[in-house]
Amino acid sequence: MRASLIHGHQDVRVEEVPDARLRYSTDAVVRVTHACICGSDLLGYRNTAPRPRSQRTGHEFIGVVEWVGSDVAHVRPGDRVVAPFTWSDGVCAHCVAGVHTSCVRGGFFGQPGSDGAHGEAVRVPFADGTLVVVPKGADAPAGALLTLSDVMGTGHHAALCAAVRPGATVAVVGDGAVGLCAVLAARRLGAGRVIMMSRHPERSALATRFGATDLVVERGPAAIEAVRELTRGLGADSVIGAVGSGEAMHTALGIARDGGAVGFVGVPKDGNEGVDFRQMFRRNVALRGGVAPVRAYLPELLADVLAGRLDPSPVFDLTVGLDQVAEGFRAMDERRAVKSMIAF
Amino acid sequence: MRASLIHGHQDVRVEEVPDARLRYSTDAVVRVTHACICGSDLLGYRNTAPRPRSQRTGHEFIGVVEWVGSDVAHVRPGDRVVAPFTWSDGVCAHCVAGVHTSCVRGGFFGQPGSDGAHGEAVRVPFADGTLVVVPKGADAPAGALLTLSDVMGTGHHAALCAAVRPGATVAVVGDGAVGLCAVLAARRLGAGRVIMMSRHPERSALATRFGATDLVVERGPAAIEAVRELTRGLGADSVIGAVGSGEAMHTALGIARDGGAVGFVGVPKDGNEGVDFRQMFRRNVALRGGVAPVRAYLPELLADVLAGRLDPSPVFDLTVGLDQVAEGFRAMDERRAVKSMIAF
Repeated sequence: MRASLIHGHQDVRVEEVPDARLRYSTDAVVRVTHACICGSDLLGYRNTAPRPRSQRTGHEFIGVVEWVGSDVAHVRPGDRVVAPFTWSDGVCAHCVAGVHTSCVRGGFFGQPGSDGAHGEAVRVPFADGTLVVVPKGADAPAGALLTLSDVMGTGHHAALCAAVRPGATVAVVGDGAVGLCAVLAARRLGAGRVIMMSRHPERSALATRFGATDLVVERGPAAIEAVRELTRGLGADSVIGAVGSGEAMHTALGIARDGGAVGFVGVPKDGNEGVDFRQMFRRNVALRGGVAPVRAYLPELLADVLAGRLDPSPVFDLTVGLDQVAEGFRAMDERRAVKSMIAF
Repeated sequence: MRASLIHGHQDVRVEEVPDARLRYSTDAVVRVTHACICGSDLLGYRNTAPRPRSQRTGHEFIGVVEWVGSDVAHVRPGDRVVAPFTWSDGVCAHCVAGVHTSCVRGGFFGQPGSDGAHGEAVRVPFADGTLVVVPKGADAPAGALLTLSDVMGTGHHAALCAAVRPGATVAVVGDGAVGLCAVLAARRLGAGRVIMMSRHPERSALATRFGATDLVVERGPAAIEAVRELTRGLGADSVIGAVGSGEAMHTALGIARDGGAVGFVGVPKDGNEGVDFRQMFRRNVALRGGVAPVRAYLPELLADVLAGRLDPSPVFDLTVGLDQVAEGFRAMDERRAVKSMIAF
C-alpha cells in the first residue's frame, strides 16, 4: 500500500510500504477514507521535534473497517469508524477514568512501529477500545467526523480544562484549527463571550462564524492589556491555550482572571517557559490540560455532529489527495491553510 | 499598646507601639484574644523572605470588637469575631466571585502600614467585608475558631483545588499545620483514603487522628515510589501541596495520578522549581492553588466548628503569652511545635 513518511526537515514523501494487516487478535485494519494534518505533525516537519528517519506521518483519520481480529467484538468489517489519534484498550484504570491518552497499552498512530494516518490503511490496536462506529445510515459530512479524531475533541478538552461555564467569558490564544474548534466547544458549553486572539483575517472570520464575540489582534503585553480592557480590568474566566509556545503561555496566564483557569492543549515546545508559578499562586490561576483524551469525548461529540448541532468541518480549507500530502504540509507550514484534509 | 515586630533574622521582639485606632469610617478595632504564628511568618523569621525592618508580625487572630467606624453596619462592639488573614471589601468583583485574596482594596494583616495579629489590638479595614461574627452564646474552643483565620481555610482551599471528591484517594505533601488541616478538609469532603507524607512521629499521629489512612515516611523519588505502590501504580487522584519548596512540588506532581490534580497552598519560595510543565501535559495533571481566600470559606467552616463536626484545634501544641512570641517562633522554627498559639 502507499503511505506518507517523513525523512527529515520539510521532507515528506509518499512511498510504497508493507500492507497494513492484523497482528494481534484485538486489532482491526481500517481502510482510510479521510485523514488530515495536525499542528503537531508540523513540529516534525519543521524539525522542532525531529522524528526518527522514515517515520510514518499522521494520526487523524476516519475510514471503513476491512478486517478484525478474532477477539474484536464491537467493530465489524464494513463499519464506518472514527479513530481517535491514540489507541487505547478501553479497560485499564486510566481508560475507565476517561484519561485514554494514559492507557497502559496505548500509543499514538504514526509512532515508530505503527501505521500513520496518512496511508491507505491502518492497523488499529485494541479496536474495541479505540474505534467509534458511526451508526449505519447516519448522514454527516466527512470533514465534521474527521475533526472528532483530534481537533474538535482537543478543543473540547481545552474548554473543559479551562472550566468553561455557562455565561463565562472565555479567551482563546491560538487561531489554528484547535483554537477555532475551542471556540465551538466553549460556545457549546455555554460561554457568554468568546475573545479570539487573532490577527489573521480568514481565521478571525472563521472564529466569528464559530461564535467568537470579540477579536484581539495585539500580541504580548499589548494583548494582555487589550483583553483586560474588554473585561473591566478583570481578565477572562477561562483561557484556552491552543499554542504550545512559552510566549502563548505567558499571554494565557496574563489574561486569566484571578481565580480563573487556563486550559492548555498546545504541545509545550518551550518546556516551562511562560509558566509563572508565583503569578499562579498570587492570583489563584489554575493550569490544567494536556494531550486530549478525545476517545472519552467521541460519543458525546459524535452525537452532536450527527444531530447537526456541531459542524467543525470549516476548519478544513484545503483538500489534497494522498499524493499531494507534501503540499498539504507546505500549505499549513506557510499558513496558507488552517488545516489540510487528505481525501483517498 | 504592645505588639510584636520583626527586626531581622530570628529577631522578633514585643515592643510598645501606637494604639490601634479607627482611621476610616469602614474600620473596626478588634481587641485580640488569641493569635497564632504561621509557616509564612517563619519565612520572614528565617530571612527566606526578608521583611522590612520593624514590620509587625502575624496575620491570624480572633478577638472582640472594641470600636467600629460610622459606616460599619454588620459588626458591633462586643462581637466576638474571626478575622481572615487578609482584609477585603466584600463587594468588588473578586470578592463577589469568592476570590477575596484578590480584593482590589484588600491587604494582608501585618503588611507595612497595618497592624499585625501579634499585638493587643488590630485595626481591621473594611470590617463589614472582612470580619465574621461568632453568634452570641456559641460555644467553641478558641483554638478551633483561630484555625479558621488561616490554616483550616487554607487546608480546605488546597483540598478544593486538588478537586477532592467523595471516595477519592488523596495524598498530602507537608505535615505542618496546613497539611494536617488539609487531612481534615479532605475527609470532610469525603476522601476515602488520605496518604500523609510524614516522618515526624507526633505529626504522623495527629494526621492519623485527623483521618489519614496511610503514612509515607520516604522523601524524593522513594516517596513517589511508595505512593505508587500504595495506589496500584496509579498515584493519588488528588494531591495537596502544603509546602512551598521545589522539591515538594516535584513530589506532588510525581504522585498525582494521570488526569488528577495538585492543589497547592505553600508559598512558592523556589519559584518555578519543581513545576514540570511537560509532565503535566503528558499526564494531564492539573495545578491549581494559591493564597487561600479563607473569607469565602469562613461561614461554612464556622458552622461546622460550632456544630462540633470540625475541630482543628489540636494543631496547636504550644501556647505562649504575648511576651513569649519569640519563643513561639523559635519552637516552630526548630520544629518543636507544629503551631504556636498566643493567648492574650
